Amino acid sequence: MGEFKHLCAARFKEGVVVDDIIRELTKLAVELDAVKFFGWGENMLDQEALTRGFTHVFVLTFATAEDLAACLGHGKHCAFGATFMAAVDDAVVMDFPLVFVKPALPPC
Amino acid sequence: MGEFKHLCAARFKEGVVVDDIIRELTKLAVELDAVKFFGWGENMLDQEALTRGFTHVFVLTFATAEDLAACLGHGKHCAFGATFMAAVDDAVVMDFPLVFVKPALPPC
Repeated sequence: MGEFKHLCAARFKEGVVVDDIIRELTKLAVELDAVKFFGWGENMLDQEALTRGFTHVFVLTFATAEDLAACLGHGKHCAFGATFMAAVDDAVVMDFPLVFVKPALPPC
Repeated sequence: MGEFKHLCAARFKEGVVVDDIIRELTKLAVELDAVKFFGWGENMLDQEALTRGFTHVFVLTFATAEDLAACLGHGKHCAFGATFMAAVDDAVVMDFPLVFVKPALPPC
């Protein structure tokens, strides 16, 4: 079994309370059964040339691309998506099946 | 125990054989004990406005920020880093401790 990732790197507009965004995203991830994993991180790399100013990363994991597509089309996600995109100054979003190299299998 | 992530989104120059890059990165990840996890993915989201043209994601996991710093300063990484940066057309790199929300604990 693989894992299908929905990854977003973001930088927020001035005045946005990122904790509020994370709280809403947490609620959404908990509510949607198809979300197998949700985690986030705040960048600690101090090299603007590499980070391009992105400050946060959000990662959601689904069993399949179809599960992700179903979630993105879900009314709750659409409402949150609009809030999220209004809050970001810049964002990169990528969807991909994760290839496990080391270790060669997903964690149990 | 947390997890410290080193994440890179990249788009490669024309003519670069991405499989060769992945092969070299795999060798490096296997050799360096501090690398707890290495995985990668090829973007499948067909929305340039969101992906910003990035085609691949690489994720390395370390136990701590210190382990990552030690690896980045390792001669083998430095040699690979130069190869990698010469091959990319554009890249975003971020380092962050991953906050586990759902589930609330790292996998076993």
